[in-house]
Amino acid sequence: MENQRIRVFAPATIANIGPGFDVLGLALSSPGDLLDAELTDTPGVEMVEITGDGGRLSRAAMKNVASRAAADVLRRAGSAKGLRLWLHKQMPLASGLGSSGASSAAGAVAANEILGRPLSPREVVLSAMEGERAASGTPHADNVAPSVMGGIVLIRSYDPFETIALPIPENLHIAVVHPHCKVSTAAARTLVADRTYGLDLIVPNLGGVAALVAALYCGDLPLLGRSIEDRIIEPLRATLIPGFAQVKAAALEAGALGCSIAGSGPSLFAFAGDAGSAQHMGAAMQRAFKTAAQLDSDLFTGRVSTEGARVI
Amino acid sequence: MENQRIRVFAPATIANIGPGFDVLGLALSSPGDLLDAELTDTPGVEMVEITGDGGRLSRAAMKNVASRAAADVLRRAGSAKGLRLWLHKQMPLASGLGSSGASSAAGAVAANEILGRPLSPREVVLSAMEGERAASGTPHADNVAPSVMGGIVLIRSYDPFETIALPIPENLHIAVVHPHCKVSTAAARTLVADRTYGLDLIVPNLGGVAALVAALYCGDLPLLGRSIEDRIIEPLRATLIPGFAQVKAAALEAGALGCSIAGSGPSLFAFAGDAGSAQHMGAAMQRAFKTAAQLDSDLFTGRVSTEGARVI
Repeated sequence: MENQRIRVFAPATIANIGPGFDVLGLALSSPGDLLDAELTDTPGVEMVEITGDGGRLSRAAMKNVASRAAADVLRRAGSAKGLRLWLHKQMPLASGLGSSGASSAAGAVAANEILGRPLSPREVVLSAMEGERAASGTPHADNVAPSVMGGIVLIRSYDPFETIALPIPENLHIAVVHPHCKVSTAAARTLVADRTYGLDLIVPNLGGVAALVAALYCGDLPLLGRSIEDRIIEPLRATLIPGFAQVKAAALEAGALGCSIAGSGPSLFAFAGDAGSAQHMGAAMQRAFKTAAQLDSDLFTGRVSTEGARVI
Repeated sequence: MENQRIRVFAPATIANIGPGFDVLGLALSSPGDLLDAELTDTPGVEMVEITGDGGRLSRAAMKNVASRAAADVLRRAGSAKGLRLWLHKQMPLASGLGSSGASSAAGAVAANEILGRPLSPREVVLSAMEGERAASGTPHADNVAPSVMGGIVLIRSYDPFETIALPIPENLHIAVVHPHCKVSTAAARTLVADRTYGLDLIVPNLGGVAALVAALYCGDLPLLGRSIEDRIIEPLRATLIPGFAQVKAAALEAGALGCSIAGSGPSLFAFAGDAGSAQHMGAAMQRAFKTAAQLDSDLFTGRVSTEGARVI
């Protein structure tokens, strides 16, 4: 008897979205990761093969985010079955685009789908967070939640865990530029986690994240752009990104509604009101990375994906 | 020729509304302050009389928030006229209900109305902030903006200054209990301003304030209640309020959707889904103040006022 095998696509994500550190994220239409999964009668999860990572990811089941997330689904579902996984990385690692989050989401969704959906979407997100923990050490959800659920997701609370799917403005287009340099997620997190912040920084972020949500409900793109201001995290992480100030300035000069760091960077995202503008400002950002920091880069443009990780 | 004279009512307000320190506030239907204003040909603002303050407020024009706000309107409008003011305090001072904010709003709105509305609503708020500065030393707007504008107001940014009027859920009712003890606004501010905060506190407030806005747009009262959680300010200011923990617990046990400190306290507010529930939980909070801290208290129940300061 042939074992059931499925293929899952899980989208890249932009976490934080400016002022919403650890609480906001959105799913991109592309890029994303592919994960093949096969149900077996042998308990446990085996990571058979990983492609596209240049050999940088661990194949050990409990160190790889996808297999760890899948194992957590098996555990929650009380399943005695096992899984064999083949992960195909189709997006840059340590780019700020939620690479580990997408693999975690793929692992959790693949396991849940192949078992016949024993878990609720909320539980799938929790399992994906358990995968993500292997990469970052802390179970944050602003990448895995949008990668699992699609759309723009707010994490209202981590304890108890609750997410809110936010409206997606019709004309919102996104440009993401990934410069060819590395920022360690763990280092970027330590940089901001090991210090404290005054109300002079906190208050603007509270106003910004609240206004960002209002802008999404109103479909007010200019307000959305004005709300993409982060006084807490961006000034610190900007120091890890060569050419940051010039690239952000180039995006705004090219008409970006707003621009900030994608996740922990080094990618920068910008919001636009149409596809042509997104392309235009993305190109300007690429030129600025080249001029200011001699960095080549990749440009992704697209819209928020309304679909999360799914069988394809 | 008789000088024109008007009377303005400016509502009390609840600032912060849980997680939104310095960026969120709402106008109450009552109580509020009354201000009579008369235009004169003599430049300058004279505070003729203050009633209802027990002699505690300064009559000096530039030390009183109402006259200071009115003077700022005259300045912005480039008016060579003057004003005579009579302020009738109809709400407790230093209660957390935005007493100085209401007087500031009354002063700014009265001056703008009597001059024939030379200023935009935004400028009126800025003048009211200038009045508020006399009371607190810092020009915050989360009391004066809702007192001027009515409704639930988000201050997206102080620089540049921008407010957003948020939707008011149809069934939202409010209980506010003012215990007969004093908390100095300046002391309450120093307590929270003179320290810094870690991301473990900031992230829950970012999620909370964002969820609160989502709840208002969706009219989701249970979500609104869950969003009234403040890890940054409430734990500190709670120490200034005798019986705080017992009163909050009593509100929640009585069915409050959410409960927190009104502004800098000592008043506590609670949200309810109907008028009877607001009355019920307000009474429970009053009993708890009495039992836990031997404090008498006043109870105000009502809805968010859609009207701000206005000529009556």
